[in-house]
Order: sequence, then structure tokens, then C-alpha cells
Amino acid sequence: MAQQARAIRTRRVILESAATVFAERGYERTTIGEILVRAGVTKGALYFHFASKEDLALGVLDAQMLDMPLAPQEVKLQELADQAFLLTHRLQRDALVRASVALALDSGATGVDRAAPFRAWIDQVSEILMVAKARGELLVHVDVTDTAELFSGAFSGIQAMSQILCDRNDLAHRVSVLLQHFLPSICTPALLPRLDMTEGRARQLGAEYDASRLRRDEVHLADTAG
Amino acid sequence: MAQQARAIRTRRVILESAATVFAERGYERTTIGEILVRAGVTKGALYFHFASKEDLALGVLDAQMLDMPLAPQEVKLQELADQAFLLTHRLQRDALVRASVALALDSGATGVDRAAPFRAWIDQVSEILMVAKARGELLVHVDVTDTAELFSGAFSGIQAMSQILCDRNDLAHRVSVLLQHFLPSICTPALLPRLDMTEGRARQLGAEYDASRLRRDEVHLADTAG
Repeated sequence: MAQQARAIRTRRVILESAATVFAERGYERTTIGEILVRAGVTKGALYFHFASKEDLALGVLDAQMLDMPLAPQEVKLQELADQAFLLTHRLQRDALVRASVALALDSGATGVDRAAPFRAWIDQVSEILMVAKARGELLVHVDVTDTAELFSGAFSGIQAMSQILCDRNDLAHRVSVLLQHFLPSICTPALLPRLDMTEGRARQLGAEYDASRLRRDEVHLADTAG
Repeated sequence: MAQQARAIRTRRVILESAATVFAERGYERTTIGEILVRAGVTKGALYFHFASKEDLALGVLDAQMLDMPLAPQEVKLQELADQAFLLTHRLQRDALVRASVALALDSGATGVDRAAPFRAWIDQVSEILMVAKARGELLVHVDVTDTAELFSGAFSGIQAMSQILCDRNDLAHRVSVLLQHFLPSICTPALLPRLDMTEGRARQLGAEYDASRLRRDEVHLADTAG
């Protein structure tokens, strides 16, 4: 286990270094050599984890997906709100997540499948909406695919605008506004008062997420030491 | 007038060339020399219109704003839909508008005020919402600023996602979906059936816009010849 924990950590260091260099120089101008210097690892270590610069980009893009499962909620649509609030929290705290979202919107990153993270988000949102539909939470006219794509696209633009206007300081507020305008148009009126779309919910989820990441890191550390 | 028409055309050629080079090489790597070659104009002509590379970037950013006034509508909120449909049409047809939106989202464009087009859009949407509010078209709880920022940010993300997934082929559909989810949460129920949020509306507005641009270009041409 100690070896596996070290490998996970090395992979993370390489990804964070790649993300930093992509963000500083743009994807196209970045070389593997620059990432090696930044990460302080050998060529062998890098190629053990990643086959190419494109592969590194895919790893960075993947980092925006949630790294632990969402806690199941009684009203399924609450999970849609929770997912958005958790991504908000991670965008505000984690440079790798920020770099991941920037890379997905970087039109200079030719040769990288920038559609992949959008498709992954749309799939996650669609899954939540399908369960919500089966449970009778959605208004009858709701088209799951259209709605999932709208929510993913709207979130993407709102976080980009928030970054440009104020370095994402107001993102939890903007996401709360998005949810308050979006959920009433898909959720049955009787359930709506049971959904928490407030910034308070965002803060609570963020604190829980940090605590559980800390616990997980402690387990890794214990494994490495043992 | 002939001279003025020529100057307008030269300015447009320079902006389109700058937009193309920004899109191909990224803002940071672009030099004024490359823009001169692409535009086929003299240094003097370029500096007559633009003081610097930053100034060219501001000119490109400005191109996404509507270049003719929106036709006033009986229900003011229809103008919000019309504005979004017209930008959709222009994004699908006009390389300069596409480059403008790409530049606003290009995180490598340091030194350029990328917040300017977002603020301009938010201002335009806010103005429409304030008139709509004064006319009693909005639900009482609507916060004009929050709502204007949500709409501008959401549109921005939806067009970026549509570009990445399918080169903006489905953008009119996505914008129609956005309006159908967004307007019911701000518009009084009695007015809602009078709003046209369909792709048919988008097509009609696009055709009208093209026709009036053609008329305007013919006037310029007549001026230049005369």
C-alpha cells in the first residue's frame, strides 16, 4: 500500500505541475521538459503515469470531475444543487480544478478532446435527472438531455464570468442564483420548498468535503509511513 | 462620405485580420507585423485606427455587441430573447464576432480588459429588465442585477459548449432551451404565452438582420462609388 500511496502522490504532483505550466504558457507552447522541471520528477516517472502531452491534458481535464461520490439525498434534485456547490468550492480552493476548467475553455488547445469534460458533466447531470424523473420530481414537459446540457453549459459560463469579473469570489452566490432560476422550471412545485439552494448549503458542503479529504489524506500518509 | 465609407471598410479589414491572427496564434504571441501582413494595409493606416495591440483587442471585443438597435417589442422581455437570438445568428455567420467571444474567454490574453464585454452585455440586459420591471412584466422577487448577470453568464457558457461539441450548429436550439427555462422564472405568468422563444423566431430575426445589413452595405458602396 505504501508504494501505491506514493504513486498516487507522484501522479498528483505531475498533474499539478502540468496544469500550472499549461495555465502559464498555454497548452500549445508547453513542452514535456518544462513539466519535468516543474514537477521535479524523472522522465521515467512521468512516462510511467502519462504517455504524452495529450494524455497529461486529459488527466488535467479529468480533475474537474468530483473525486468522491455525492452524498445521496432524499430529494434527488438536491444532488444537482450539491454537485454545483461542490464544484464551486473546488474551483475556489484547488488550482488543479481551476486549470482543468481553463483548459476545457482554451481554444488554443488543439489536439485535445475538450468536449470530454463537457460530456462527462452532461452524463452526470443526466443521471441525476433520470432518477429524479423516475421518482416523479420533474415537471412532465422536462427533456432530460436538453436540461442536462443547459445546466452544464450555464454553469460553465457563470464560473468563467465570475473568474473574469472577480476571481470567482462571488461564485457561490452566482450558483445559488442559477439554481433559483433553473430548478423552479423543472421541479414539481410541491417539492421546491424542500430544496436548499442557498449559499449556506454551499458552505456546509465545502466544509464537509474538506474534512473528508483530510481524513483520506491521513489514511494515505499512514499507508506511506507503514 | 466616400472617404468615410472607405475608412469604415479599412477599419473592418484590420479588425478581421487581427481577429484571425489572435484566433490562430493566441493573443499573446500575435505581433502587429503579422496583422499588417494579413490585412494588407500600411502601418500608417493601422495606427490611424488603432493605437496598439491592446487597442485592437478592445476593437475585436467590441464586435460582439449588436451593431444595430434591437426592434422595440410590445412585451419588453421579448427583446431579451431577440438579443440572444441575434447574437446566436451573428456567432454562426460572422468570424469577427466568433473571434471576439473567443478572445473574451482566452485566459492567455493578459493585459486585455476581458471583463469589458461581459459588463457591456450585463448593462444591456439590465436595461431591458429595468424597463420590463417598470412595465410590470417581472415577478416581484426578481433582482435585476443578479438576473442580468445570470443570463449573460449562462449564454456565454452555452455558446462555448455548443462550439466545442458541434461548432455551434445547435446553438439556436440551446438558446431556445435557455429561454424556456429562464423566462418562466422571471416573467409574470399572464405574459409568458406572448413570448416567442422558438427557433423559428431565431430564423426570422436572422433573415431580417441579414437583409438590413445588406441594405446598409449597399448604401456604403454607393457612397464609395459616388
